[in-house]
Amino acid sequence: MIDLRSDTVTRPTPEMRRAMAEAEVGDDVFGEDPTLRTLEEETARLLGKERALFVPSGHMANQLAVYCSARSGEEVWAHATSHVLGNEQGASSVLARVLPRTFDSPDAVPDDALLERWATGTDDVHRARPALLCLENTFTGRAVPLAGQRRAAALARAHGLRTHLDGARLWNAAAALGAAPAEVAEGFDTVSVCFSKGLGAPVGSALAGDADTIDRARRARKLLGGGMRQAGIIAAGALYALRHHLDRLTDDHARAARLAKGITSTTGLSAESRTNMVLLSTAPGKAPGHASAFADQGVRAFAIAPDLIRFVVHLEIGDADIDTAIAGIGAAVMTRSQGPAAR
Amino acid sequence: MIDLRSDTVTRPTPEMRRAMAEAEVGDDVFGEDPTLRTLEEETARLLGKERALFVPSGHMANQLAVYCSARSGEEVWAHATSHVLGNEQGASSVLARVLPRTFDSPDAVPDDALLERWATGTDDVHRARPALLCLENTFTGRAVPLAGQRRAAALARAHGLRTHLDGARLWNAAAALGAAPAEVAEGFDTVSVCFSKGLGAPVGSALAGDADTIDRARRARKLLGGGMRQAGIIAAGALYALRHHLDRLTDDHARAARLAKGITSTTGLSAESRTNMVLLSTAPGKAPGHASAFADQGVRAFAIAPDLIRFVVHLEIGDADIDTAIAGIGAAVMTRSQGPAAR
Amino acid sequence: MIDLRSDTVTRPTPEMRRAMAEAEVGDDVFGEDPTLRTLEEETARLLGKERALFVPSGHMANQLAVYCSARSGEEVWAHATSHVLGNEQGASSVLARVLPRTFDSPDAVPDDALLERWATGTDDVHRARPALLCLENTFTGRAVPLAGQRRAAALARAHGLRTHLDGARLWNAAAALGAAPAEVAEGFDTVSVCFSKGLGAPVGSALAGDADTIDRARRARKLLGGGMRQAGIIAAGALYALRHHLDRLTDDHARAARLAKGITSTTGLSAESRTNMVLLSTAPGKAPGHASAFADQGVRAFAIAPDLIRFVVHLEIGDADIDTAIAGIGAAVMTRSQGPAAR
Amino acid sequence: MIDLRSDTVTRPTPEMRRAMAEAEVGDDVFGEDPTLRTLEEETARLLGKERALFVPSGHMANQLAVYCSARSGEEVWAHATSHVLGNEQGASSVLARVLPRTFDSPDAVPDDALLERWATGTDDVHRARPALLCLENTFTGRAVPLAGQRRAAALARAHGLRTHLDGARLWNAAAALGAAPAEVAEGFDTVSVCFSKGLGAPVGSALAGDADTIDRARRARKLLGGGMRQAGIIAAGALYALRHHLDRLTDDHARAARLAKGITSTTGLSAESRTNMVLLSTAPGKAPGHASAFADQGVRAFAIAPDLIRFVVHLEIGDADIDTAIAGIGAAVMTRSQGPAAR
Repeated sequence: MIDLRSDTVTRPTPEMRRAMAEAEVGDDVFGEDPTLRTLEEETARLLGKERALFVPSGHMANQLAVYCSARSGEEVWAHATSHVLGNEQGASSVLARVLPRTFDSPDAVPDDALLERWATGTDDVHRARPALLCLENTFTGRAVPLAGQRRAAALARAHGLRTHLDGARLWNAAAALGAAPAEVAEGFDTVSVCFSKGLGAPVGSALAGDADTIDRARRARKLLGGGMRQAGIIAAGALYALRHHLDRLTDDHARAARLAKGITSTTGLSAESRTNMVLLSTAPGKAPGHASAFADQGVRAFAIAPDLIRFVVHLEIGDADIDTAIAGIGAAVMTRSQGPAAR
Repeated sequence: MIDLRSDTVTRPTPEMRRAMAEAEVGDDVFGEDPTLRTLEEETARLLGKERALFVPSGHMANQLAVYCSARSGEEVWAHATSHVLGNEQGASSVLARVLPRTFDSPDAVPDDALLERWATGTDDVHRARPALLCLENTFTGRAVPLAGQRRAAALARAHGLRTHLDGARLWNAAAALGAAPAEVAEGFDTVSVCFSKGLGAPVGSALAGDADTIDRARRARKLLGGGMRQAGIIAAGALYALRHHLDRLTDDHARAARLAKGITSTTGLSAESRTNMVLLSTAPGKAPGHASAFADQGVRAFAIAPDLIRFVVHLEIGDADIDTAIAGIGAAVMTRSQGPAAR
Repeated sequence: MIDLRSDTVTRPTPEMRRAMAEAEVGDDVFGEDPTLRTLEEETARLLGKERALFVPSGHMANQLAVYCSARSGEEVWAHATSHVLGNEQGASSVLARVLPRTFDSPDAVPDDALLERWATGTDDVHRARPALLCLENTFTGRAVPLAGQRRAAALARAHGLRTHLDGARLWNAAAALGAAPAEVAEGFDTVSVCFSKGLGAPVGSALAGDADTIDRARRARKLLGGGMRQAGIIAAGALYALRHHLDRLTDDHARAARLAKGITSTTGLSAESRTNMVLLSTAPGKAPGHASAFADQGVRAFAIAPDLIRFVVHLEIGDADIDTAIAGIGAAVMTRSQGPAAR
Repeated sequence: MIDLRSDTVTRPTPEMRRAMAEAEVGDDVFGEDPTLRTLEEETARLLGKERALFVPSGHMANQLAVYCSARSGEEVWAHATSHVLGNEQGASSVLARVLPRTFDSPDAVPDDALLERWATGTDDVHRARPALLCLENTFTGRAVPLAGQRRAAALARAHGLRTHLDGARLWNAAAALGAAPAEVAEGFDTVSVCFSKGLGAPVGSALAGDADTIDRARRARKLLGGGMRQAGIIAAGALYALRHHLDRLTDDHARAARLAKGITSTTGLSAESRTNMVLLSTAPGKAPGHASAFADQGVRAFAIAPDLIRFVVHLEIGDADIDTAIAGIGAAVMTRSQGPAAR
């Protein structure tokens, strides 16, 4: 079975397991875990921020950013299909009690005119006050060019908003854009990153930003129940991943490109690669059936819309797996287009 | 000064003042105000619901509907420019802690395909569960045809959602559609109405629905601080308005139509009447300046967008006021198009 | 029927009704109601604060104070039986999301040692940070001496907390202590007062404080749905009460004292008067039965504990009513102590 | 340095590290981690509940119990010094928005009369409705007898409340009472337990209860950001601890008893042992100074009140450490009582 559902499914490598088994640990609620501290310091440095905070999930990293950047009843501006609004179970309404205001631009960044319009009339008592602009990079696999996201962030800051970058796959963006991670995070007050997607660690994300915000986020992490004791065990896995798996992301991207090309040439269907993802367009409503047929051929992937299937390449996928996947997908499409077995 | 900013600016008539001065009252926190009880009963009957609850504002009526129909972290579906989401200071996030999901259809009602799509995949742990569909009638002055809103409401209910109608100007919708108020409210679990807009009462709105929901709303009204003591004083004004001012709404609509026609013929600008409102389109960015120039001519109105001015006809506006307003608006536009005084 | 359940049951006097009928009004959501403005200004002046805000209930006044003085997850310190915590339906947890920390001192004011203890160790990540001290005057009818409440408030402020006085019956406290209302409110950032208890207005309370806090409270009032349109109608009643009914509170207190004395001498039961209230102690569990027997004799009162009945003297109670009440209560107690009719 | 500050400071043993390094893992957000599943099943079985849910902290376990058992504005009844109210940063107000109602009984369990009183009058609109009774066992180290906590839980359930047991140190309670863990958890809808205190695992707690509640808690865990990916790594440590470290808790208790006796005989101060804790009473205000002097002698402990020091015995403390600690504490007290070095 070739599992291309997500880059979250990777299991730790032997080296990573060894790092975890040998990690020096302490009680992090008392601030005494040396491995965790090292991870937080290296992460902050890599992202060009004063401080970083380790958290058990990217969801928590994003929600802490919202909680620490906006007050009850304020507005958060984000893309209509952003993870922070649409894939975190409504947490921004429950925890931070903020009101979403969504844009729908195809390039993941709101245009200037819209930002200007939203920034006016905010003293009206009928209106929630804007507090935070959230962008995301990569956005559904796409590495968002830095100039655009920086211009939007700068404009938001000029109007008094804070800015957050959901960088769950920031490492992929950096690799694809040929930029340092800190360059991708530049212009944002806070940035979240994930150690358990492309980097392959078993558990963990981080939120980075200025010292004051991260101090408040550390306190709020405890509020949410995210304070862990000898967290150095899992931090050791994340630290190993950060030190050894950053450079190999370009391999994932190359394999995704080859997978997209292979699918298209084998099936005739339109497949587009974006960093470590491949998006396969199907006829309307056909995506779930196709995904199911792929699984029968040993290739797992998610139908993320009625006409769209997503494949994600990751640490456990080698060149041979790409060949096998292309063949399996090709066979599945051929079978479905021919026979009565099609669902 | 002819005040066309909103139908909320009306002052009580002498008859209404007399009704308030002579009202029989009691402590409504103990459920002992006879005038209030009569108002609630007549309102419920008129709307075809089991019960109604008097509240100090339409904002509170809507927010109680959300609070009593959805739990923390659930989704509320509403138009992107609906009052309940966009004009109530983010209260749905603060009070009910619900996540908005917005549609943007021009006819104020979401299409079936969208509703079907939103109703699928709701068990996904990444997703907030849908709880409530909110529609609005009239919607920016437009009387929404009943067939469409009923179909959307029925579809939502078939998927287990509750349904609320923001009927702040339901009375105008009923008058424009030639329908009874209960017909406009049909198909919705709850409906809010306002006594202080077209009807002209000084203070008050109501939320109507089934007995269980309204009992919970009564309790939640106290939670928000909306429980009042001898509220019969203001209920008497609302009751008078309900009994005497419903029929005259068609006069407002006729005057709005005449105003729109007059503005267009005098100024050449596009003005559209919708129930008791007139929407005047201007060149981009010109609306605030125009509104200001109108005020200089004795006509007050709101620029509700950079290229849109709204006039609202109400109880205090007679035929002569319409003539005067047309003349003033015409003079203002002429002056602005000619001279150096234009801003 | 002599209704001594609460001073909230009073109905407006003819003069007050006339004031309301003739009130000059405007749309207060636009800040254009002259009567309301006058009421807010006179209230602020009387309480020695920069600004005051009219609200539909004392509950809303208190909850706005909490909402504007503390953030989510912070502590509010108040008496274990305070109105703001125990009689407002848990609103402080729902709206402001604050954590109560309660003291239980018999004199309504926490002692210094307790405040000092609570104010230490507040940086501990396990602990909510303290934000607000709430006191209450009168407290279950008792006029709380000013020295004590000021010392507690000063100590709290020295530790960085804000301070609120629930002055629902502050007017009674002032009358009983021989102090100006502003003296009772001195030392507190915010103070709430009620127009519909001893003063006898049909509806309304106010929150007073510094300009910044009251501006934020005005905005938050809208969030809760407490923004009203031509609220001048009811403000006129409150204004009349404020101008004409303050001085007569000492009459209520004198009548309460006479009622307590009369009950004790007639029934032998212990009855204590506190400002405009009388607290009658009964045998354990007997209070509800007694209250019911009093009602049979035409005297209404609340059993506020299994062994405690509360009578409240107010605007509609004259000297003759006191005599009648004493006689009725005496007859009820006699009947219950003698016969099989006792429940 | 002998660290007796808390049983949370233990580092994983070599066997536990090996179990973690070799753990079979999968993506738990997709429900595919076999080690985690085994841990949850064994925990549920041991506690006599249908299901259990692994969470990163005891704080999250308790707060999920509250969130899933009570709605916004409802009451939670707990001891005034309970962990769930006083040591979790006010999370119950922020997340579940419940109102605490606290009892202060010395034996950790409310008496029947109080529960009966609290359970009456709950329909009053001024009052929050009760939803949940939380007890704690052990409570500040004391193993709470089962008869009393079961009677209180049964009474609460009879009045329609749900019941939660904070069993962060339930394993110690079971060992001290000679009861099975399931017997300690009996009578409660939900129970939280911790793997990282006496059991010595690096990270993790669990919430156990009926299937419906735990399903909702699983969803809510994601809401809070507690969903982790290959959590089997840390679950393996918890599983090892659960299988191998339960029986040794009686050793900790014996050592705590010996420590208490040794401190008293050496210093003359009153020291009481409770399961794995020792509570040392000092003169008022002297506890912080003493704790500091102990640290100078190589013994770390917390002053948990101005006159109280807490020592906790755990996995890393052997018999020799107890002897050393007694000697160090004795030396510190002697020095402080004699000399100018006393602070």
